[in-house]
Amino acid sequence: MAPQQGTLLSYRPDIKVVDATIRDGGLVNSFYFTDEFVKKLYKANVKAGVDYMEFGYKASKEIFDVDKFGKWKFCDEEDLRSIVGENDTNLKISVMADVGRTDLEHDILDKQDSVIDLVRVATYINTIPAAIDMAEYCKAKGYETSINIMAISTSSDRDIKQALELIGQSGTDMIYIVDSYGSMYPEQIRELSEMYLEVGEKYGKKIGIHAHNNQQMAFANTIEATARGVSMLDATMSGMGRGAGNCAIEALIGFLKNPKYRIDPIFKFIQDEMVKLKKEGLVWGYDIPYLITGLLNVHPRSAIDCIKQERTDYANFFQEIWDKEA
Amino acid sequence: MAPQQGTLLSYRPDIKVVDATIRDGGLVNSFYFTDEFVKKLYKANVKAGVDYMEFGYKASKEIFDVDKFGKWKFCDEEDLRSIVGENDTNLKISVMADVGRTDLEHDILDKQDSVIDLVRVATYINTIPAAIDMAEYCKAKGYETSINIMAISTSSDRDIKQALELIGQSGTDMIYIVDSYGSMYPEQIRELSEMYLEVGEKYGKKIGIHAHNNQQMAFANTIEATARGVSMLDATMSGMGRGAGNCAIEALIGFLKNPKYRIDPIFKFIQDEMVKLKKEGLVWGYDIPYLITGLLNVHPRSAIDCIKQERTDYANFFQEIWDKEA
Repeated sequence: MAPQQGTLLSYRPDIKVVDATIRDGGLVNSFYFTDEFVKKLYKANVKAGVDYMEFGYKASKEIFDVDKFGKWKFCDEEDLRSIVGENDTNLKISVMADVGRTDLEHDILDKQDSVIDLVRVATYINTIPAAIDMAEYCKAKGYETSINIMAISTSSDRDIKQALELIGQSGTDMIYIVDSYGSMYPEQIRELSEMYLEVGEKYGKKIGIHAHNNQQMAFANTIEATARGVSMLDATMSGMGRGAGNCAIEALIGFLKNPKYRIDPIFKFIQDEMVKLKKEGLVWGYDIPYLITGLLNVHPRSAIDCIKQERTDYANFFQEIWDKEA
Repeated sequence: MAPQQGTLLSYRPDIKVVDATIRDGGLVNSFYFTDEFVKKLYKANVKAGVDYMEFGYKASKEIFDVDKFGKWKFCDEEDLRSIVGENDTNLKISVMADVGRTDLEHDILDKQDSVIDLVRVATYINTIPAAIDMAEYCKAKGYETSINIMAISTSSDRDIKQALELIGQSGTDMIYIVDSYGSMYPEQIRELSEMYLEVGEKYGKKIGIHAHNNQQMAFANTIEATARGVSMLDATMSGMGRGAGNCAIEALIGFLKNPKYRIDPIFKFIQDEMVKLKKEGLVWGYDIPYLITGLLNVHPRSAIDCIKQERTDYANFFQEIWDKEA
């Protein structure tokens, strides 16, 4: 399975767009989306020709208090069905399962009893064996599976190669490049993509990318990876996501030349729903503190705090993070 | 003069950063910056190791009413000197002169009587001969000169090549790629850069880039061009500029590995001055209407109107622009 590459005018039928608005955007509002919002998003994605919609996490209710999060932190089957029914559409349903924070045996049904199509396992590079176990478990239950290696910008090439080799030999269908800290530039994404695609070709795995916008690179990195042959592309409405947010789906769909995608339903959803969220006071997107954690290649949590506290002493913040974490 | 190329870790002494905050940001507030703002910006640029600071336009007072614009629309010598004195620093002073909107004979002094170092002539591709005349005039007066071909995304390769050949044979020092509509992607910038650099090498001209952020590509396009060998890089504080704005200088300086640049004075300036401008209600930066004009490769003026009118009916706006202009 040689990766397909492309230029601006070429059309790549292998490309799949994954809307992660609820899942990554849920990190902004603790997953408290209204049912109306989620239903409209689902319909917009179906109309726009989006390939997958990620509804949230399959988080353990032993570990997380159900009273402190909206339901999309848990994605119970009945909640999914209340939105999608039997999901008689071409849009596939995805959920994310974090290593160490999921009760697979309890929460993952047999595929025949679920509307979920894809389970994406989120892992750091030092928990790859656990991630593979989880993905194998879900695969055996009948799902498509992905292993998403987070915070890849902090890993050495040697570790990444070893991790990819392990995952390559597993039954998982997809492997994701995840720039959790939004610290990478396109030329790094290019090299990383080639490393992942080599393993993907060897073992028959699709490669995906999930980018963050700390340095205004989420969309640029996504299309750089696309040009190299990466084919699973994460994006969110108005780039909604933790901290600086993600690749904006409106920019991505505008870029892709595949005629099956339609941008009008995306614009309609943004004007009807995303504008409201912003007016209600939800905050995400590029800002100086995120640039700083991205530049220094550290977790955005201190930048998120900085913005919550409405601190604008950026020069101090830069020195703080430099001294403390970088 | 072969263009130098670079990777992330290499250091390119040929690179020059041009702060265009007053000039392009002036299109947001009709050039009404306070003297304090401009003085602080000048000092920040000096401290940060920025190479050029563009103070504004040399606009004709016959054509433009001096009562309707701040002084940086005109950049009188005494106004410049009130900020920079004799400019006894390493920061060079730039101004922009639009073809057809400048009284060169009246407004451009002999270099020996001016603190200006660089005059950049802004032209559309159909007024190149006039632009060359203007650049030659300024060159003869003793200035460095640049010819900046605007709205390049609407020109054919054949026209661009012909224009570059003409400019190549002229006395101008620099030629700029200007993506006025913010409609280009990195792979297009790559090809355009190669076209410009070929002429630059042949005739001994430096090549520059001025990018807009309609599709969140201003910074990505700037560093793509840089990697190819483009060496004059325009950027502005917090990306301030018309419509979707420009390449953010804080992101660019963070990216560049040249140890002469310092990012702290940039953060300090942003926290002290740019935050205030935003609070006062000045608006620029990525938004859906700009994405739409960028996607459709048209002038951002209708997007600017759309945002001024606080319209958020993006799907309608998209259809309007599609029908009317694209």
